[in-house]
Amino acid sequence: MKIKLPKGFKANGMHCGLKKKRKDLALFYSVKPAKCAALFTSNLVKAAPVVFCQKQLAKTNCIRAIIANSGNANCMTGERGLKDAKRMAKEVAREMHLSEKTVLVSSTGVIGRLMNMDPVIKGIPHLVKGLSEEGIIEAAEGIMTTDRFYKISSRTLNVKGKKVTIVGVAKGAGMINPNMATMLAYIMTDVNISEKALRKALTAVNEDSFNAITVDGDMSTNDTVVLLANGAADNRMVTEKGHDFENFVKQLGHVMSEIADMIVRDGEGATKFVEVTVKGARSFKTAKKGAKAIANSVLMKCAVHGGDPNWGRVASSIGSSGIKFDPNKMDVVLDGVVFLKNGRFVDPSAEKKKYVFKDSDVSIEVNLHQGDKDACVHSCDISKKYIAINSYYTT
Amino acid sequence: MKIKLPKGFKANGMHCGLKKKRKDLALFYSVKPAKCAALFTSNLVKAAPVVFCQKQLAKTNCIRAIIANSGNANCMTGERGLKDAKRMAKEVAREMHLSEKTVLVSSTGVIGRLMNMDPVIKGIPHLVKGLSEEGIIEAAEGIMTTDRFYKISSRTLNVKGKKVTIVGVAKGAGMINPNMATMLAYIMTDVNISEKALRKALTAVNEDSFNAITVDGDMSTNDTVVLLANGAADNRMVTEKGHDFENFVKQLGHVMSEIADMIVRDGEGATKFVEVTVKGARSFKTAKKGAKAIANSVLMKCAVHGGDPNWGRVASSIGSSGIKFDPNKMDVVLDGVVFLKNGRFVDPSAEKKKYVFKDSDVSIEVNLHQGDKDACVHSCDISKKYIAINSYYTT
Repeated sequence: MKIKLPKGFKANGMHCGLKKKRKDLALFYSVKPAKCAALFTSNLVKAAPVVFCQKQLAKTNCIRAIIANSGNANCMTGERGLKDAKRMAKEVAREMHLSEKTVLVSSTGVIGRLMNMDPVIKGIPHLVKGLSEEGIIEAAEGIMTTDRFYKISSRTLNVKGKKVTIVGVAKGAGMINPNMATMLAYIMTDVNISEKALRKALTAVNEDSFNAITVDGDMSTNDTVVLLANGAADNRMVTEKGHDFENFVKQLGHVMSEIADMIVRDGEGATKFVEVTVKGARSFKTAKKGAKAIANSVLMKCAVHGGDPNWGRVASSIGSSGIKFDPNKMDVVLDGVVFLKNGRFVDPSAEKKKYVFKDSDVSIEVNLHQGDKDACVHSCDISKKYIAINSYYTT
Repeated sequence: MKIKLPKGFKANGMHCGLKKKRKDLALFYSVKPAKCAALFTSNLVKAAPVVFCQKQLAKTNCIRAIIANSGNANCMTGERGLKDAKRMAKEVAREMHLSEKTVLVSSTGVIGRLMNMDPVIKGIPHLVKGLSEEGIIEAAEGIMTTDRFYKISSRTLNVKGKKVTIVGVAKGAGMINPNMATMLAYIMTDVNISEKALRKALTAVNEDSFNAITVDGDMSTNDTVVLLANGAADNRMVTEKGHDFENFVKQLGHVMSEIADMIVRDGEGATKFVEVTVKGARSFKTAKKGAKAIANSVLMKCAVHGGDPNWGRVASSIGSSGIKFDPNKMDVVLDGVVFLKNGRFVDPSAEKKKYVFKDSDVSIEVNLHQGDKDACVHSCDISKKYIAINSYYTT
C-alpha cells in the first residue's frame, strides 16, 4: 500500500553510508513555502541540529525542506557539529535551488561523535532526485534507528468543501536506548491556515500526544516535532477559532496520537501498552504530573510486566509525585477491577484479580475525587530484554 | 561477635507469626528517657505508624521504647490501621510499665492489608522479657523484609573524657520491591546532648547519608529515621556548637552513612555500587539534584550493569534534570577516565575504556565548572534479576 502525502509535498529516504545497511537519510519537501510550527527538546544538552533549527525559525517561518539523518545524533560535538548541521542545510538548498533559510535539519543516533559528512554530501543529490509524492515510507525508514517498524498516520478532513490531508511520520523506539531513541516527528498538511492557528493547534495536540507518552522518563537531546502547512488544499483560511479549527485540531490529534502510541508500542523489550489515567484532580497539570509519576515508576512497570496487580505501587508512586491530594479519598482501579475505594483496600475476588495486567493493553485508573480534571498518559512495561539491550549498547 | 548497645539501651527481636519463619518483631528500649529527633517519609501516602509517631512526637520528646514489625506495612488501612498502631504502643507500655506517650511504632511490609494483631500482642511479653544489651542483632533481624543481611554500624568517641557510643541499625533492601523495602533506621547513643543539637545533627547527617542514597526514585510510605540520645555516658552536655558537637556529627555521619550504603549494597539484583558526584555547581541543592537525576536514570543503571562507558547518558540525564548549567563547560569522568572535557568528547584509548564500569564499585563524576559546591549520591545498577524479582511479587 502506498501512502500519499498531502498536496504539494514530496519525500524520500535512502542509504548513504552513515549506517552499514539500513536507510540513514531522509528528505521532506514542500513545493511551495509552508508555514511552520515546531517544538524542540527542553533538555539543556541540545544537539547541534536542534540549535540550528531554533536559529532558523527565529528568522523565518516559511520552510521548504527538512533533511534528517539517522546513525549519528550530532550532539555534544561543539562548533564543528553546528557547522555540519549548517552544511547539510546548505547542500540541500544548493541542490534544490532554495534559500538556505528555508531548510531545517534533524539528526538521531549516537551522542558525542562527529558527523561523517562525506556520505551525507554525496547522498543529497540522489536523495533530491528520488523525491516523490509517494516517498513517505522511504523517508520514514531513513530516520529509523532501533525502530522495528516505521510510524506513519494520516487523516483527511473537509474544510469548506475542500479536501485537506494530514500525514505524520515519526521515529522513536520506546524503551530501547533513548540515546538513540530520539523522538523525531514531522507532520505535513496541505491545509490553508493562519500562522497563529497552526501554532495553537500544535501546542494543544502535543500536550495530549507526544507529551503524553512516557518511555523511561529521560528526555532526548534531539527531540523535535515539526508541523508544516503549505496551503495547497486551497481552502478558505482556517483561523484559531470556530468549527474548522476544531475539526483540524481533532484530526491532527488523531495523527499525532497514533504515531506517538506507535513509539510506545515499538519498545523492544516492551511487551505491554499501559494507559494511566488520573481523574478528579483540581487541575490538568496536577492530573498529568500524577499520571506521569505512576507511568514512570520502574516498580509499576515491573508489576505490569509480571501481571501482578500490585496497586500499592500505584498509591505509593502518586503519593510521592509531589501533587497534593487526600489519600483517604483515592480510588485505584486496575483493568477495570477496583482495588482501592475511598482510600480503603477492597479485596477483589481471586477470579477478578486473575485477569488484571494479563493482556497486551492494560489500564491503571486513579480517581482523586478532588476536582473534575483528568489526564491520560501512555507508557509500557519493562522487561529483562530491556536490561539486556541497554546494558551492552555502545560496547 | 556481639555488638554492644550504648549504655542504658537494650534491644530484642523475635518471630511472632506475622511471617512464616523469619523474625518479624523488634523492640528498642532506653532505660532512662531519651531525647528524640526523627524524620519521616514525605510521601503523601503515609502508613499508620508514621502518622502515629508524628502525633506522639508533637506532644513529647522523651522516648523510652520503639516497637517495630516486619511483614505488614500497616499502610492504607484507614482508622483501623491507626488503632492497631496505637494498640502496639499501648501493649508495650503496659508490659513495661511506661507511659504510652513514650513509645514509638514502625511497620514494614505489604501495603493495604490489615494487621494481624494477635501474634503481635501475644509476642510482646516475650519480646520484653528477652531485652538485652546485646540484643541488637536480634532486633535488626526483626525488622528485615527482603534484606539479605542485617545492617548495623557503631562508633565510639570521647567527649570531655567520657566514652560515648553510637549504634545504628537499619533495614531496606535496595532495589528490591520498595513496597516492602521501606527504609527504617534507629540510631541510639548514650551521649548527653541538648535537644537542639540533637535535631541539628540528625538533619545535617541525614542529608549526606539516607538522603544521599537512591534506589529507584520511589519513596516508601513508611520511611522512618529515629535518633535517640539517653545521656547515660554522663558527659558534659554537648550543645550545637564547638568541637564536641562537630566530632559527634562526624561519628554519627559514619554510622548513618555505613548503614545507608549497606542498603544500596543489599539490592537483590544489584551487582554494582555507584558513586555519583556532581562538582562545581552554584549550590549544594543544584549539585544534589543533578547527581540524583544521573543516579536514578534507568539507562545509566543499565550502562553500569553492562560495563558500558556510555557517557552520553550521563550528559543527557543531567541535561534534563531541571538544573541550569552550560553544557559546553561540562566534564564527565567515568571511573577516573575523562570522556568529556569542556563539553567536548575526549576519546580515551581503548585500553583505558576497557576498565570503566567493570568493578563492583564504580564512579561517575561530573564537573559543571559553575561554582564550588559539590554533592555525592550513592546508587546501584539494575539487572535482569531486579525485573524478575519485581515482576512477580504479590502474586
